[in-house]
Amino acid sequence: MKFIHTSDWHIGRQLHNQSLLDDQRFVLNQIIELATEHSVDAVVVAGDIYDRSVPPANAVALLDEVVNRLVNELKIPLIMIAGNHDGHERLGFASRQMNDSGLHIIGPLTKDVRAIELNGKAGGALFYGLPYADPATVRQVFGCDVSTHEQAMAKLLEQVDEHDSKGLPKVVVSHCFLDGGSESESERPLSIGGADKISPKLFTPYSYTALGHLHGPQYKGAEHVRYSGSMLKYSFSEQHQNKSVTLVELDGDGKASFELLPLKAMRDVRIIEGELAELLELGKTDINREDYLMVRLSDKTAILDAMGKLRSMYPNVLHLERTGLMRENGKVELNRDHIKKGELDMFTDFFSQVSGETMTEAQQQAMSAAIDELHKAERTS
Amino acid sequence: MKFIHTSDWHIGRQLHNQSLLDDQRFVLNQIIELATEHSVDAVVVAGDIYDRSVPPANAVALLDEVVNRLVNELKIPLIMIAGNHDGHERLGFASRQMNDSGLHIIGPLTKDVRAIELNGKAGGALFYGLPYADPATVRQVFGCDVSTHEQAMAKLLEQVDEHDSKGLPKVVVSHCFLDGGSESESERPLSIGGADKISPKLFTPYSYTALGHLHGPQYKGAEHVRYSGSMLKYSFSEQHQNKSVTLVELDGDGKASFELLPLKAMRDVRIIEGELAELLELGKTDINREDYLMVRLSDKTAILDAMGKLRSMYPNVLHLERTGLMRENGKVELNRDHIKKGELDMFTDFFSQVSGETMTEAQQQAMSAAIDELHKAERTS
Repeated sequence: MKFIHTSDWHIGRQLHNQSLLDDQRFVLNQIIELATEHSVDAVVVAGDIYDRSVPPANAVALLDEVVNRLVNELKIPLIMIAGNHDGHERLGFASRQMNDSGLHIIGPLTKDVRAIELNGKAGGALFYGLPYADPATVRQVFGCDVSTHEQAMAKLLEQVDEHDSKGLPKVVVSHCFLDGGSESESERPLSIGGADKISPKLFTPYSYTALGHLHGPQYKGAEHVRYSGSMLKYSFSEQHQNKSVTLVELDGDGKASFELLPLKAMRDVRIIEGELAELLELGKTDINREDYLMVRLSDKTAILDAMGKLRSMYPNVLHLERTGLMRENGKVELNRDHIKKGELDMFTDFFSQVSGETMTEAQQQAMSAAIDELHKAERTS
Repeated sequence: MKFIHTSDWHIGRQLHNQSLLDDQRFVLNQIIELATEHSVDAVVVAGDIYDRSVPPANAVALLDEVVNRLVNELKIPLIMIAGNHDGHERLGFASRQMNDSGLHIIGPLTKDVRAIELNGKAGGALFYGLPYADPATVRQVFGCDVSTHEQAMAKLLEQVDEHDSKGLPKVVVSHCFLDGGSESESERPLSIGGADKISPKLFTPYSYTALGHLHGPQYKGAEHVRYSGSMLKYSFSEQHQNKSVTLVELDGDGKASFELLPLKAMRDVRIIEGELAELLELGKTDINREDYLMVRLSDKTAILDAMGKLRSMYPNVLHLERTGLMRENGKVELNRDHIKKGELDMFTDFFSQVSGETMTEAQQQAMSAAIDELHKAERTS
């Protein structure tokens, strides 16, 4: 049994108000190609299929395309569970009518955790898709008393344990936060104060656990308890992560081996730093200048329309930080006092950029007087 | 071939801010029972499945229940098309993965109008589900030049005509506005100025046309070109309509016969009129006092908390009109001048209701002076 484990597609997500739909289509097509190339028996998506409980219509249309390619055209079974970003009812609509087609969507949590039996070219496996469920949901569905995420998960896994495997390896698909996991900025916490943490030990008894939620690929507790990570970098904090899907192979004894298959983004997400002139010069030979960029400008002078100038070279600058204008103590925000103190200095920079000349002393005095007038008027109004 | 034709479920709709989900579940269960009782070969829903393109999660869950009952448990094929209220992409997600189960959802318009062949106990039929599509959509999908709804529909029907029926009767399922159709207040117009009107003649060549959009059951052009009407009264203007589903039977020659199967609402939607005291008295023996009511009060005096008093007897009063306080010319709105003129009169009514006594002349004069003072203050402020 050979399958691709991926998660956190977040279809429909934006990065600093920039739609990523084309980037998502690009990388989803790679996942489809990898599935074909490696002749996998299934693709497993461990939650956060969409970014929001009400995804935009074009996100739904993109997922529909992907599903049709994989399930209808390539006949590769697809298992998807709802994550904490997904609308469980919406994602799970009519899922029972899809199962025979090879599309298995697990939306709202139900009392009976269903085993999905898939037959691979070299042996079968049982997949247990556990949708994201907080303790309150588990209490309500099972009428039991659980108060932490760990207790809730243990309750769900009881069902997996009770199920007769008939000698097949068991694969758990889950969306949760394992204790010790490394977080990124683009994840939405499952709860406040660490009550969402689950011991990795809960999952070590199974042949493989395909996890979603954390956006960096990693394993916890044992190598076969893994997060595949998201398919794209969804925050600048992820600039140094390598995104991939996990190719999992179960041998006859249900022992898993893994390989990370790298994903190439249409546009990378990264941070560049330096002075404006220097960055504009570098851009001329930067073949990846269409990447999504956060720019940290170290210039210590005011710059007229810095964003416009940067975008003329790097069209997808999404965020700009003026690190050169920040205080020595490293505070990121420009504060009001700081701006006030430097009005004359800032105007001097502005003047020289617009006119190409330096202000004369007389001009500086006139400007200084004008600023004083304005402050007086502000105080008395 | 015997099937139930219904439409305009509008699941998730509210009536004057009152959720109708329980009422909708009640009547949907009746439709399921009627389908069983009459051993139908299919159920056809001609659009406006949901009320909004983004239905609430509990509306999605209700439709999921209905689909599971009909398709999974009763094995009755279900055909649904998107209406003008539905989100085509959302409704149509993964529809290709459902077809084998007997669930046929036609969401976004595609270039190929698909024939759904169903085999009934006494012969088969071809169903052509045409989702609601305005001329702009048809132009875009087919790359053709159509400007009216009628031309757009003719374009879609070309495909139906070209399809080889292999001797089976053709049934068209469509969501549109036929010229001469009777409207209700709860329909959202498809376009302004009548450009949405389609001649019924377009549909007469087919064995049957199952229409949605108009909320009153009716046929146009020929008896076999029919609107089933909505499953519930969605406005007070529909108080005198009888809601039903249409049972359609096609004989060996493809000739259709019909029967309207009445639907009973959990709570009726109706208007009652009279003086408050009289209505409260009548309520005591009204076994349907939990109906959704619009009340037209003919009292000519001000009444303290008329809504509260009415609701103590009729818990589901949704709207109150004070017809007794309206001008003789029949204007419905209370206008500002009218209210101003009667301040003293209104206070007099209020006083007597609260104190149980009539105001003395001295009290009236004091009140009158106070009102004058207020007006003076209002003018000078």
